[in-house]
Amino acid sequence: VARTGRRPGESGTREAILDASRAAFARVGYASATIRGIARDAGVDPALVHHYFGTKEGLFRAAMQLPMDPAHVVEEVLAGPRDGLGERLVRLFLLVWDSDEANPTLLGLVGSALSHEAAAAMLRDFVGEELLGRVARALDVPDARLRASLLGSQMVGLAIVRYGIRLEPLASASPDQVVAAVAPTVQRYLTGPITHPPA
Amino acid sequence: VARTGRRPGESGTREAILDASRAAFARVGYASATIRGIARDAGVDPALVHHYFGTKEGLFRAAMQLPMDPAHVVEEVLAGPRDGLGERLVRLFLLVWDSDEANPTLLGLVGSALSHEAAAAMLRDFVGEELLGRVARALDVPDARLRASLLGSQMVGLAIVRYGIRLEPLASASPDQVVAAVAPTVQRYLTGPITHPPA
Repeated sequence: VARTGRRPGESGTREAILDASRAAFARVGYASATIRGIARDAGVDPALVHHYFGTKEGLFRAAMQLPMDPAHVVEEVLAGPRDGLGERLVRLFLLVWDSDEANPTLLGLVGSALSHEAAAAMLRDFVGEELLGRVARALDVPDARLRASLLGSQMVGLAIVRYGIRLEPLASASPDQVVAAVAPTVQRYLTGPITHPPA
Repeated sequence: VARTGRRPGESGTREAILDASRAAFARVGYASATIRGIARDAGVDPALVHHYFGTKEGLFRAAMQLPMDPAHVVEEVLAGPRDGLGERLVRLFLLVWDSDEANPTLLGLVGSALSHEAAAAMLRDFVGEELLGRVARALDVPDARLRASLLGSQMVGLAIVRYGIRLEPLASASPDQVVAAVAPTVQRYLTGPITHPPA
């Protein structure tokens, strides 16, 4: 039977919340969007948003169809020896991006960030603070924010060149080859020297 | 006096050639586009295209409003001591991108490459082969193409994070700070170890 739409039921409500959240994230950015405001826009109780999606981060992830849970990514990368941070981060990145379903959404997010300020703000807040910023801060190193943004530059560039533009041979390189080449960069950005010695 | 448009004169002809070339580069990519085909589309003699723009590379640069001449970039980067390659490349990159007029065009090119295959092909051919490929090949190192694509990943990512998304503090870092952080990456991608030692 066709749905009549008057009372949309659970999946309709979820979709209304996701639509409202995408609009809010695009309009005011990740940091400024609130569960309360999104719930109001979707015409539901905030408790229902929490019930379906947990935190704002969970809502964002569902709205953007992101395949990974940032808290989990951070935990995985930080577990294990400090000199293996670069390798673990690159391996996890490849695992997420090599899955076909993930990468059109993620590339679309980067693409729209280049033309829309709100999408740029969203990516800045989310990738910079929630994802890479957390890793860098957890390491107790100087210049954690600069390290996070340098890390962002290599990872965003790797995503675009390997999956977006598909520049060979990086596009077809095996995960081991990519790790061998890129993990030392990531390791240095996280824990190595990134400034000139003081004069 | 207003231009009547019947016989457009030099600037109209130049524009017609540029329009035809942008369409051709977008349709078939940089490598497959020909001066002959572009001249035909613009309704002019191929000799006139050569007269105004020199080579296909000059035409591409004019069509995309690129501020730099790739041959000049390659020459500048290669001149001087080998262990200063990374620093020279990053400094030149910052010089080009820090100029306000350049970067909307360049970011637009990257953005459209994420949604249009022809734009992706154009960027692959041009950045991969004409620009970074030339540098890597001139160095007489193993894995020159892999090195060029790794270099591309860091430079594209730096462009997007510093100028597109504007993730702080990398967005506001001084050229010296960026060089200190990123030049070692570029130097290793060009001349350092990028593969695991053979087992």
